[in-house]
Amino acid sequence: MTSRKSKIMILGFGTVGQGFFDLFNRKKDMPGLNNFSISEIVDMKYGHILNPRPDLVEEIGKGKTFEQKDVVSAIKESDADVVCEFTWLNLKTAEPAYTHMKTALELGKHVITTNKGPPALKYKELTGLAKKKGVRFMMKGTVMAGTPSFNLLELLPGAEVKSVRGVMNGTTNYILTSMEQGKDFSTALKEAQALGYAEADPTNDVDGFDTASKITIVSHILGWNHEFKDLEIEGIRNVTPEQARDRTKLVAYADRSKAYVKPMKLERDDVLSGVRGVMNAIELDTDTMGKIYSMGPGAGKMQTAQAALTDLVSIMKEKA
Amino acid sequence: MTSRKSKIMILGFGTVGQGFFDLFNRKKDMPGLNNFSISEIVDMKYGHILNPRPDLVEEIGKGKTFEQKDVVSAIKESDADVVCEFTWLNLKTAEPAYTHMKTALELGKHVITTNKGPPALKYKELTGLAKKKGVRFMMKGTVMAGTPSFNLLELLPGAEVKSVRGVMNGTTNYILTSMEQGKDFSTALKEAQALGYAEADPTNDVDGFDTASKITIVSHILGWNHEFKDLEIEGIRNVTPEQARDRTKLVAYADRSKAYVKPMKLERDDVLSGVRGVMNAIELDTDTMGKIYSMGPGAGKMQTAQAALTDLVSIMKEKA
Repeated sequence: MTSRKSKIMILGFGTVGQGFFDLFNRKKDMPGLNNFSISEIVDMKYGHILNPRPDLVEEIGKGKTFEQKDVVSAIKESDADVVCEFTWLNLKTAEPAYTHMKTALELGKHVITTNKGPPALKYKELTGLAKKKGVRFMMKGTVMAGTPSFNLLELLPGAEVKSVRGVMNGTTNYILTSMEQGKDFSTALKEAQALGYAEADPTNDVDGFDTASKITIVSHILGWNHEFKDLEIEGIRNVTPEQARDRTKLVAYADRSKAYVKPMKLERDDVLSGVRGVMNAIELDTDTMGKIYSMGPGAGKMQTAQAALTDLVSIMKEKA
Repeated sequence: MTSRKSKIMILGFGTVGQGFFDLFNRKKDMPGLNNFSISEIVDMKYGHILNPRPDLVEEIGKGKTFEQKDVVSAIKESDADVVCEFTWLNLKTAEPAYTHMKTALELGKHVITTNKGPPALKYKELTGLAKKKGVRFMMKGTVMAGTPSFNLLELLPGAEVKSVRGVMNGTTNYILTSMEQGKDFSTALKEAQALGYAEADPTNDVDGFDTASKITIVSHILGWNHEFKDLEIEGIRNVTPEQARDRTKLVAYADRSKAYVKPMKLERDDVLSGVRGVMNAIELDTDTMGKIYSMGPGAGKMQTAQAALTDLVSIMKEKA
């Protein structure tokens, strides 16, 4: 075993990348993390940054840029041990993140991602490649950011999951919660957009694709392997204010035989019916515990950075 | 490293002991657990059972008993690596479980317990002893059985907890939930007793001592070290049906400077206000995630056994 620090390469230095960089620097003296250093960053806008200074976010805020570099070439030339993929979501082709991850895994680098595209669309190929190369392909941040979700199973060894249900999209749940007061869908959507909870093109959220990508990932992790393209997906565009008031939520469900996303009226004593605003929740129905729940933020700069940090420490533990 | 299986000794073969024995035998072929075997059991009623057969629970159900043996002598003579303490709760002296655990730790054996007495009353001494002997003192089952509680922090490396709140006693929450329909405390208590949710002597539950022992344990694990004897503790005997309907819950709270248990009226959008019946819940307020929640059963034969199994796999992982 060498005493050299393991090197981390960050791809994409937007909100998540900057959040992770700052969180890592704040927490880097803790046991485990003190064996890592962030050795380089590649970003479309800011360029290729080698051995970044801790005040990098401040530097680029003042307009500093670095030499441009093609991302795939940078991965190939890098001596990093871990690649953190934080570029943008593409639920049609998973690109460019898919090529980034594939390149990194083929070179025997661990991959951590918060990007749902490649895990949802190319799960089998990428996990198979990681296994072949003896590295980890980690994706906690793709499902409910750092809020415990599928990784609850690490705390329940031996337990078998019979089914999973979740309210896993903060944007739609925020819209449904505000519709309870009588607003129709388009008014509530506009307000959510004005507050920054919904994007200008809201389709990934309101038509259920974001939620569907998450339940697809969970289904793969549990070995059920439902494919994104085969999911029954219905969004919330047709939900009425009356239905919202009647505890209608955008529910993701999976068990061994099926997986779907659709608005469903929930019972009053259903824990998921009490999930308010942008909060997310997951229910695991297990053989030993019965139903257990985790709730918390499903997005946010620091919350998503926490997920990547959790994955990093998990890789470190396995190496130790 | 020897290839001999690590041996487990069980103290106390009541509901929890039998649940653990059966769960272990059901799951023993899983990675990790296949390095363990249950080598002996000591119980006041059934005696000293060496190399138990998998159908032991059935055997003793048919009236089979074994030679009586003093528990402390049995621990001293045992070659077990792990002692699982499942005897009865005593929140005054922590005995006899305290002596059992101390004896086992002094002999360099790992201790797993679901018994709140010694962790709540003798935390510093027993964890200090375990540290000195290089073994683990594990107690997941003391707080919300196998439902993730303080161990959520294993999934949030680097996160700092600012405060903890919880609804951690199923008996009182069941009583408060049924009081919402207008029943007074003593009627609801009698019904809970008839259903087996409350004990004949309900004081540990309804006067808040059970909840207090749990928040004490959490406070120790988080390094805040509030002592059980110093806690402000108020139970639910004086809660009215109106207050119950107004979302009054028996709340446990701790931060660095204080810890208490008392009935509190919760806001409508407080996640804890939606905890129904015997279900338990915990809220961790952290620097990276903000508030996250875990909910699920806080008791039950299999649910408590899962907690001990989780602890066992955790010990195994550390050994590997």
